[in-house]
Formats: sequence, structure tokens, C-alpha cells
Amino acid sequence: MEVFMKKKVGVLLSGCGVFDGSEIHEAVLTLLFLNRRGVEIVCMAPDITQMHVINHLTQEELKETRNVLAESARIARGEIKSLSDVNSSDLDALIIPGGFGAAKNLSEFAFKGPEGSVNPDVKRLLDEMLSDGKPIGALCIAPATVGMALKDRHPKLTVGIHEETIQALESMGVKHEICSVAEVAVDEKNRIVTTPAYMIGPEIKDVAQGIEKLVDKIISLM
Amino acid sequence: MEVFMKKKVGVLLSGCGVFDGSEIHEAVLTLLFLNRRGVEIVCMAPDITQMHVINHLTQEELKETRNVLAESARIARGEIKSLSDVNSSDLDALIIPGGFGAAKNLSEFAFKGPEGSVNPDVKRLLDEMLSDGKPIGALCIAPATVGMALKDRHPKLTVGIHEETIQALESMGVKHEICSVAEVAVDEKNRIVTTPAYMIGPEIKDVAQGIEKLVDKIISLM
Repeated sequence: MEVFMKKKVGVLLSGCGVFDGSEIHEAVLTLLFLNRRGVEIVCMAPDITQMHVINHLTQEELKETRNVLAESARIARGEIKSLSDVNSSDLDALIIPGGFGAAKNLSEFAFKGPEGSVNPDVKRLLDEMLSDGKPIGALCIAPATVGMALKDRHPKLTVGIHEETIQALESMGVKHEICSVAEVAVDEKNRIVTTPAYMIGPEIKDVAQGIEKLVDKIISLM
Repeated sequence: MEVFMKKKVGVLLSGCGVFDGSEIHEAVLTLLFLNRRGVEIVCMAPDITQMHVINHLTQEELKETRNVLAESARIARGEIKSLSDVNSSDLDALIIPGGFGAAKNLSEFAFKGPEGSVNPDVKRLLDEMLSDGKPIGALCIAPATVGMALKDRHPKLTVGIHEETIQALESMGVKHEICSVAEVAVDEKNRIVTTPAYMIGPEIKDVAQGIEKLVDKIISLM
């Protein structure tokens, strides 16, 4: 009988690359700090077509299609589940790294702002986690998707200092907190922890500070 | 007059994903530790078509083409140079993360073993670095490409404990040193530092140990 079960933390990815998927540094640093804390990591992503594909050298849109789950598998080294197969009962906490994919593939926030919708499976899992009192972490622009999904709970979040994004969130009833890149915003009531990461940056060592604090706070809330 | 010029360390990428490009965790951890040490990072990759494209979820080969430089730009957040534009005079050291791309796109080692060739620009830059006495670091399977390129110097390298790879390297005149994932092999004469990373793994916290030691050793040799 396994008495000491490892706690399981889900990492919800949205592709592979800052301009059309998960921000790679944020995703990898999340995995590093979770692994150092000894929790089991469950990577997942929706099995859907990316909103678009961006050439990261030229920032031009490419005329090709890529699948969010298959591209996310690059970050997860193949060890990844389809989001539709994951329920709150499989997890003790959930973390969503940033990158534009978090606001293009997990929701329509990047294109439609507060008028956009959230991917149904993303909304389902976030609703389940909240109802079960399990902590949710989100980095960079990912808090915008969390805010859209859970706006009825008026969550307190940070997306750093980007005025337009802050206004869009506040128009939905989200409470916004200004944070530095090394800090986290904590919504104790809803058990949501957020950090600006590359919404502020500017360097990988800077975003690593906030991400490590977020991971520690999520683990303390489990 | 800039008296205290930052040292510049090149990071040579080979795509974006363990099965057809750079191993993403190894690449990002290299960037993290270099950034924490305060050096300037110069990401680069060859502007060539990938040897192939692998679906990282199914490990099946896809009937599509991707460009090594454009895919590597995902890891570098767009800040990357074409390898053909980089010379030893632009750098104080060079590090090559692993992933199959390092032995598929930077050389033919993964397909042809010791009979394969090294990408001409990769060989040129490695020859220049060695001639100029500037340190070279390589992770995981990337030491195999370094060994092929510089075999006339009989470099001392590690690729961990994979017997077939070790034999292929020794058949070229390379000296192989068994290393744990937390260790580095140091060739003081040729100023080459290597670590097994995901050739041993198994987890990201484990490979981070060896990569941090490699970065420290490279910086101490500059």
C-alpha cells in the first residue's frame, strides 16, 4: 500500500513557442521548479488546431496548421495527456504557463478581449478545480484566460503592468493587482496564484524568480 | 568607451524538440544559467531544412518540412542569428545543447555514425573556436557532433553510458569518459566541456545539475 502518494500538479500547455503557443522558458521553468519540489507533473493540452502558426524568426503568419497537443508534446518530451481526458480528481493543483497560445488557443482573449470565449475543456477543468478548492496558478497572459473563465467569482489576478490588458480584465469584474516580475498575486479566497513573467521580464533570470515563488505558493496551498 | 564589455557566449540550436531538434529543457536551462552568470547570450542556428519532422506525441514522422533556424527561434524568443553570420571573433565561448537535432541537423551522426559528415558551418565555427582557444560546451548527444568535427584533435568527451554511441566515438579516435548526469567531462587541452544531460537524465532537476556545472566551467575557462 502506497501511504505517501506524491501530489500531482497539472501543467496546461497551449503549443510550443511564445507567439503562437506556450512561452517555452516559462513552461520549462515551471517543470523545473515543480520537479525540484518532488511533486508528480501531469502535462496536458487541448487536442485542437492552433489558432495560427507564426514564424518566430520573422513573426509572419505561416500558411500551415499545427495541433496544440502535438506541439505541446515537444515541451513535455512526449509525456502529455489530452486535456479532455483530465479531471480535477486527477490533480491536486493546476498551473498554466503563458505565451500567446494561452490567450489564442486556450481562449479567444488575444483576438476578442472580454467578448471572446474560453475553450470548453479549459473552462470545465478550471471550474472543477475551483469548486474542489484546488489551487490554480497562471503566468504571464494566462491569467487573462483564467479571469475570463472564472469571472463570476471576481478573481484577483496580475498580468503585470500592461494597461490595455488590465482594463479588459477589470471590465469583466476581475480585480487586478500590479506586481513586479519577482512577485506573485495571491487570491486566497479562490486559491489562485499569478505572476507577470514575460509580461514584464525582461530576462529569463527575472521570470524565474516569480515562477519559483508561484510554484512554492501553489504547493503550500495544496 | 566601454571598459567592461560583457563576455559573449554562443548557444548553437538545432530546432525545437527532443526528437527532431534541440532538447528544449537543455536549451532553456543553458540560457537560464548563462543569464544568471551575467554573460551576453548569442543564440544561433543553421538556416537549413530539418532532416525530418517528428510528431512528438506519436513519434511518427510527418510529411512536412520545417526550417532549423525558424524553429530554433521559438526557444530564443525570436532573438537568433543565422549560424553562417557568426564567427569565433563574435564569441568568447560556444555551447551546443542536445536533442536529436544536434546529431541529425548539425551532423549526420544519428543516421550514419562515424561515416557521416558535419554541417560545414558547424565544423567551421568549431574549428575556429578551437584554433582561437575559446571553450566549447556540449550536452547530451551534441558531444558526438563535436567529436566528429574535431576528431583530429582526439578530444575527450562524455555522452554518458550509451555503449553504441561510445564505441562509435572511440572508433573515430575520440577519448570517452563515463560521467554521471550531475558531472562534466573536461578536456583541458582542447578546452571542451561536456555533460550527459538527458542521455542519462532521468528528470529535469537531474540534468539541471550537470548543465549548471558545465556553464560554470565554461565561464571559468573564458
